[in-house]
Amino acid sequence: MKLDTIRLIINSSRKFINIGARQKLWNLLKNFHPPDLAGFINHFTDREKIILFVTIHENDNEKAAEVLSELAPEDAADLIQQIPIDTATKIFHELPSDDMAPILELVSEELKNKILTSLEERPTEEVKELLEHEEETAGRIMSPNFYALNENTNVSDAITAMQLEGDVESAFYLYVVDDRNHLKGVVSLRQVLFSKPNTPLKNIMTTDVISVQTDTDQEEAARVVADYNLVAIPVTDSEMKLVGVITVDDIIDVIDQEATEDMYKMVSLDTTDRIKDSPYSSVKKRLPFLLFSLLTASIAPLVVNHFKGTIQQVVTLAVFMPLVAALGGIAGNQTVAIIVREIAVGQTEWISAKKALFKEIVVGISNGIIIGLILGAVSYAILGNPYLGLVLGLAVIINLFIAAMVGTLIPLFLKLIKLDPALGSVNLLTMCTDSLGLLTFLGLGTLFLNYLI
Amino acid sequence: MKLDTIRLIINSSRKFINIGARQKLWNLLKNFHPPDLAGFINHFTDREKIILFVTIHENDNEKAAEVLSELAPEDAADLIQQIPIDTATKIFHELPSDDMAPILELVSEELKNKILTSLEERPTEEVKELLEHEEETAGRIMSPNFYALNENTNVSDAITAMQLEGDVESAFYLYVVDDRNHLKGVVSLRQVLFSKPNTPLKNIMTTDVISVQTDTDQEEAARVVADYNLVAIPVTDSEMKLVGVITVDDIIDVIDQEATEDMYKMVSLDTTDRIKDSPYSSVKKRLPFLLFSLLTASIAPLVVNHFKGTIQQVVTLAVFMPLVAALGGIAGNQTVAIIVREIAVGQTEWISAKKALFKEIVVGISNGIIIGLILGAVSYAILGNPYLGLVLGLAVIINLFIAAMVGTLIPLFLKLIKLDPALGSVNLLTMCTDSLGLLTFLGLGTLFLNYLI
Repeated sequence: MKLDTIRLIINSSRKFINIGARQKLWNLLKNFHPPDLAGFINHFTDREKIILFVTIHENDNEKAAEVLSELAPEDAADLIQQIPIDTATKIFHELPSDDMAPILELVSEELKNKILTSLEERPTEEVKELLEHEEETAGRIMSPNFYALNENTNVSDAITAMQLEGDVESAFYLYVVDDRNHLKGVVSLRQVLFSKPNTPLKNIMTTDVISVQTDTDQEEAARVVADYNLVAIPVTDSEMKLVGVITVDDIIDVIDQEATEDMYKMVSLDTTDRIKDSPYSSVKKRLPFLLFSLLTASIAPLVVNHFKGTIQQVVTLAVFMPLVAALGGIAGNQTVAIIVREIAVGQTEWISAKKALFKEIVVGISNGIIIGLILGAVSYAILGNPYLGLVLGLAVIINLFIAAMVGTLIPLFLKLIKLDPALGSVNLLTMCTDSLGLLTFLGLGTLFLNYLI
Repeated sequence: MKLDTIRLIINSSRKFINIGARQKLWNLLKNFHPPDLAGFINHFTDREKIILFVTIHENDNEKAAEVLSELAPEDAADLIQQIPIDTATKIFHELPSDDMAPILELVSEELKNKILTSLEERPTEEVKELLEHEEETAGRIMSPNFYALNENTNVSDAITAMQLEGDVESAFYLYVVDDRNHLKGVVSLRQVLFSKPNTPLKNIMTTDVISVQTDTDQEEAARVVADYNLVAIPVTDSEMKLVGVITVDDIIDVIDQEATEDMYKMVSLDTTDRIKDSPYSSVKKRLPFLLFSLLTASIAPLVVNHFKGTIQQVVTLAVFMPLVAALGGIAGNQTVAIIVREIAVGQTEWISAKKALFKEIVVGISNGIIIGLILGAVSYAILGNPYLGLVLGLAVIINLFIAAMVGTLIPLFLKLIKLDPALGSVNLLTMCTDSLGLLTFLGLGTLFLNYLI
């Protein structure tokens, strides 16, 4: 959708809200898909949001539920806390349990209990079960709604059974279980369509089902779906009993979320920090990381402090300090980005850490020699002192070697101690390349001091 | 799969390859899924790879084709150029056209033509058509295989027609077209399953079909699929005639690829740079960017050069230079990451650039004041000179303001001039925060020079 169209819709909606023209508001909005409506909603003030959302609910409760599903859980929780409780309950009736769980977790305990008790038996149990699984696991994001039938059911009965079950959101497979609900196979709806009515499911099912367990990390589940080109993956408990299904739309959300998290963690950002947050909330989120940065960034001054005497005699060294530090930082960031990203898309299983380290070091030294030679030659040409060129060139070569080594080791080390490989890696890297790079540069400067004065 | 298991399989395979025990090799490999086999292959030498791949082909040609599909196009092209042409042709017979196109583009013109002429009519035409679309567009990644039937077909005839069409890779929808092949609607296979045999498709189809055009950017197509929770999206030409379908597995590849590209472009990396590349190839890929970095990183020394006199008199200023620069760089990177990522997941349509800039500046100044005050106070406490504390604190406040402003403007500006918002953004940012930050710091130092000596 074009930005102008969006502006127009938002301005008109706002006008209708302010003059209380709810029917006109609905006429304007009714033809939009829920994801579009969810996109619009963030542009309104809290008061406008409520009127808009309640208007959708009054005209099409199911659509209101879909809009709620499409909002980020924090935004959905915000909204739900501001509308009348009976409206909220009605909307929750239409919400699939897997979309309900993350929202309920963010509202007050009181509201959560009210909503849960007002819901009928089944979804309440389902939501409670989902909430029992750890965050960011397959169990937490799976949907408890899916088609599963006994292996002895024939195709014709299977079709009837699925029809009775009603519409199951994005169901493309029929899972086949034994008498004790163990996952035995899978049949695509395409196969069902093409098979004779009296064929038992066990004759047409694929027995080699790829599945994950409830405690599998959601990122790992996403990788399995991506690697095997699936559109849904069944989730079993520890006894291989089928308990849920994760559909590919939720997998895409996980992949997006993890890509954002990787990038955010690399630069030491809270993973929930967004542009639309209030400045106050962003300051609160970023400050701890900046205080941590203040610590990591304080190492380099301690190093430089030791060389005050050298700098006093050759101030030109101070001039080139930012260059040596920046080149190390940039080359190191490249290595960090490669290693973090390859770990994220699951390549680490395939690479040996030793090979990666060796390769990056070779690349670092090679690039260092080329950049170092250029820099040394240029600075000699401009400043006329060959020793300054030598010191500068050597420092760059060594700092690019340090950058390659540290840039590889930081994410691998973070992974080894079970932290996220991206976590604060750019901070830690800058700390190393700044302090070790300047140590090298000023150290070499001190060594050649007599030739530099 | 556990790393140990993988090692074991690779070592055993290697042994079987070396003693020529091809049957044993096949027995070892036959139970693995194609994505697993594709993962293994990268661990072997070129000679071993060929034997392994040809062994798979001899025993199960379809599996060989699937393995080829799972490899990165560059790796697949490499492999295909080393095996006998008739083997290659046989494998290509089994390959869907959308997987064929990217591989054929990377092999020699001669081999490409040989393979194309040896294929039968239909796939050749299809591949040629795919190759006619621009890279990174929906037209390039769509599959020309899908179920599409006339709107007047009834459900029973539709089932027969689909059966005759044979197995279409991951088909979950039946598209409905008019007599001139214009896309009119969509029916899920679930709906087909649940409808009476004599119902015409037009009675059960959803007419509000979300589609993209052949020239739509692949990233935009991916965003549409992600936003609307689809498992496939139809692709039309400019006249709304249905020409292809993109399935969600290809969408996931696009999302992964774009996430990698964002991170890589931020740190100025070639988007094809991988750990498994040879050091030589990585040096070649990274060097141009490092040379560009050499230029951007050379601005700060020019700035510092102007303040040599000040530094000579107050060497302590040189000690704190890396701290001022690092804090600006870290805070700026945070802003860049947020803006780049929100543009990537499609939030920019929803945010106004002005609001984002205002918000980031408020956050930057607020954090700057807090960090600046702490730093100023601590340095005063340690060094005993209140003016040094003042200069340092002020410089940090101003540099965090600069970082916020520049960090927001760089990606937005790059987007405005139709470049990738992430492209080299960290380099450009470091250039600004280093040079402007040091200009501020040393400028303030010169201003307060009399109080610092």
